[in-house]
Amino acid sequence: MSQSPEHQGAGPSSSEETPADARTRLITAAIEAFAAKGFHGTTTRDIAAAAGMSPAAVYVHHRSKEELLYLISRRGHESTLRLVREAAASRDDPAERLVAVVRTFVAHHARGHTSARIVNYELSALSPEHQRDIADLRRSTHDEMHRLVQAGVDAGVFDTPAPRMTTLALLSLQIDLARWYRDEGEWTPDEIADHYCELALRMVGAR
Amino acid sequence: MSQSPEHQGAGPSSSEETPADARTRLITAAIEAFAAKGFHGTTTRDIAAAAGMSPAAVYVHHRSKEELLYLISRRGHESTLRLVREAAASRDDPAERLVAVVRTFVAHHARGHTSARIVNYELSALSPEHQRDIADLRRSTHDEMHRLVQAGVDAGVFDTPAPRMTTLALLSLQIDLARWYRDEGEWTPDEIADHYCELALRMVGAR
Repeated sequence: MSQSPEHQGAGPSSSEETPADARTRLITAAIEAFAAKGFHGTTTRDIAAAAGMSPAAVYVHHRSKEELLYLISRRGHESTLRLVREAAASRDDPAERLVAVVRTFVAHHARGHTSARIVNYELSALSPEHQRDIADLRRSTHDEMHRLVQAGVDAGVFDTPAPRMTTLALLSLQIDLARWYRDEGEWTPDEIADHYCELALRMVGAR
Repeated sequence: MSQSPEHQGAGPSSSEETPADARTRLITAAIEAFAAKGFHGTTTRDIAAAAGMSPAAVYVHHRSKEELLYLISRRGHESTLRLVREAAASRDDPAERLVAVVRTFVAHHARGHTSARIVNYELSALSPEHQRDIADLRRSTHDEMHRLVQAGVDAGVFDTPAPRMTTLALLSLQIDLARWYRDEGEWTPDEIADHYCELALRMVGAR
């Protein structure tokens, strides 16, 4: 949360807060709680307290803790997919397109590492149906990456004997970043993005 | 478990089973249970049932579910560190040494992906003291990798502007493999190891 409810003076019964605002406030509180204590270690009561609401009020907006996790996860995966697609569409040259996508993905994952970590590592806590939804989104992101690697190979500007395995390796770099990245670390998201673009070009064998 | 207790005919009171055997059997059962249901979704009763023991018998051998997770995690990290050190010591040439280490690490992580996944993704369920122990082992593995990348740069046979970040990227490839690898997938551990050795040489800029 950027501000605590006390500072805002906005409790659950505030006349200025819309239901959409309340849902956003709950999601922000849930991200913090899941990041601090893990999904299984977090109670609905913890989330309610962090959002300045009563536990009963949480259920007005969200059916369960699992639904909050699903919303966080879907939102995270949708925004990654959208950014990857926008970056891929912004360039025609395969190498420039790869750099645009890796730069966007890395900077996004570094800046949003708290929710990215939840989104990547608490998937098993989702219901089977929600896991399938998220798997579809992940597959779409994978397919975008694979298409751009393959396009470079087809155009003769990338040289890799296994484009699909190289795609998985590129995704590993970007996904695992959320595990090791620290805000207080020595590199900024942009510095990491610069280096990872260079690594990605080497991995695909860009000429 | 390679064989169920029924097939072995070895229950908790078997006169042929030593306490060490029983502990190993419990650890194997715990790996399966944690992999299937997650650490938080697994009860001591689940582990006991999978090992063909009574819940009370579990406590004879291990103080808690957390202790079992710690033993699995310590064993996994120790074996990775040992394999990395052995591989690094087996060659003098920096590029050959990198290939030996990556090949060993990748094949080990692919073959042991079930426990590798638990070892990597349930760290937050460990006690603070146990987390520190594991963090020390992870740091030692990181330092081995960093030393071999830096040695290649110092010898003028690797060319990377950021050896430490490149080291983290190499570790990401190897760690994240445990997340995506499937036994029924299209590549064998050795095929992945071959390709990842090539990727690693490109990433460090081997001449």
